Amino acid sequence: MKTRDRILDAARQLFNREGVTGVSMRDIAGQLEMSVGNLWYHFKTKDLIVAELYQQLMGEMFAQVQQIPPERDSIVSLLDSHRLMFAVQYRFKFFYLNLYDVLDQHPAVKELYVQFSQQNREVAKGFLQEYEQSEVFARSLSERERHQLITSGQMLNNTWAIDAELFYAGDPKGKLLHYMQICCQLFYPYLAGKAQKEYDAYFEALENDES
Amino acid sequence: MKTRDRILDAARQLFNREGVTGVSMRDIAGQLEMSVGNLWYHFKTKDLIVAELYQQLMGEMFAQVQQIPPERDSIVSLLDSHRLMFAVQYRFKFFYLNLYDVLDQHPAVKELYVQFSQQNREVAKGFLQEYEQSEVFARSLSERERHQLITSGQMLNNTWAIDAELFYAGDPKGKLLHYMQICCQLFYPYLAGKAQKEYDAYFEALENDES
Repeated sequence: MKTRDRILDAARQLFNREGVTGVSMRDIAGQLEMSVGNLWYHFKTKDLIVAELYQQLMGEMFAQVQQIPPERDSIVSLLDSHRLMFAVQYRFKFFYLNLYDVLDQHPAVKELYVQFSQQNREVAKGFLQEYEQSEVFARSLSERERHQLITSGQMLNNTWAIDAELFYAGDPKGKLLHYMQICCQLFYPYLAGKAQKEYDAYFEALENDES
Repeated sequence: MKTRDRILDAARQLFNREGVTGVSMRDIAGQLEMSVGNLWYHFKTKDLIVAELYQQLMGEMFAQVQQIPPERDSIVSLLDSHRLMFAVQYRFKFFYLNLYDVLDQHPAVKELYVQFSQQNREVAKGFLQEYEQSEVFARSLSERERHQLITSGQMLNNTWAIDAELFYAGDPKGKLLHYMQICCQLFYPYLAGKAQKEYDAYFEALENDES
């Protein structure tokens, strides 16, 4: 692994354990048994490390979501995209556990986050409109319903880790599945009967998957 | 106002502005032009102030919600309880903006929070069951749907302030209304036609209310 990648990996793990605010450049160097000068050669500030990790996070999300075949007449692609997204988010959970502080204290990251959110809103809107037309959904949504469904979806996707980390007692696999079900449930009442069956079968298979 | 209440009020405002972690006992004393010794006479630790503020928050929520007449065949009581609850939450927004850190760092508060959440779940469950029976809802929910609706409702209620504080540009009144609509929207697809009309009229009246 390149030094730069080793730094990012160590920082990510320390942030996940201690929170961004509680970790100094010295801590990161110490974790890597590296001089602060050498760390500084690669990253001048902690800010730059946080911003770079957020770029990694976005990159991994895009890479995962691109693996999903676009089946726009099936709810499975939406569920799969949540499954993959939640696993990436969990690897970068420090970001979500302290979303307010991280964005408030790192303006460069906030800017990226706003851009990424805006892109995601457009993707989500496209998905919903396809679902309305292809009869995955039982009916068309009003503009207001679509807007609010996307917003509450984004809010849940970006904050589930807080609830998960404070209150969920089980293993990581069960945790991701539990919160994924809560977030995806937003769509359930809009689904036509056939899509509801597909949805139920999808989660039943995940619950029974022992791998 | 009693000294004790002045301390709590000053601490709440400082926490809202600077975050709990960024505020010391010395800052609170300074804000009140009080000696640290005098502050310490009333509260031995910042922990105790945070715990007391959380008790205040819970007290205000209960007091507000008790004002609502129990109309269990109308969706209005559910919407009113959200309206009042959101206004109280916003007065104590420091708590929600850094929910993870506050609960992680204040075990006494976490314990109260867990108890309060559990009570709220039971109240919410009662509401939903009444709505299913009184035909405010178009159909009965499955156990799973009820569980997930309550959980996603709690998650949105406890995290909307993060999104609001980072991204909503308008005035506080518009802000509360905006996020209240997003959170209450969870119930919308379950409502029978008559209750949907009632819901729409409720928000239309709030939007047009210039007071």
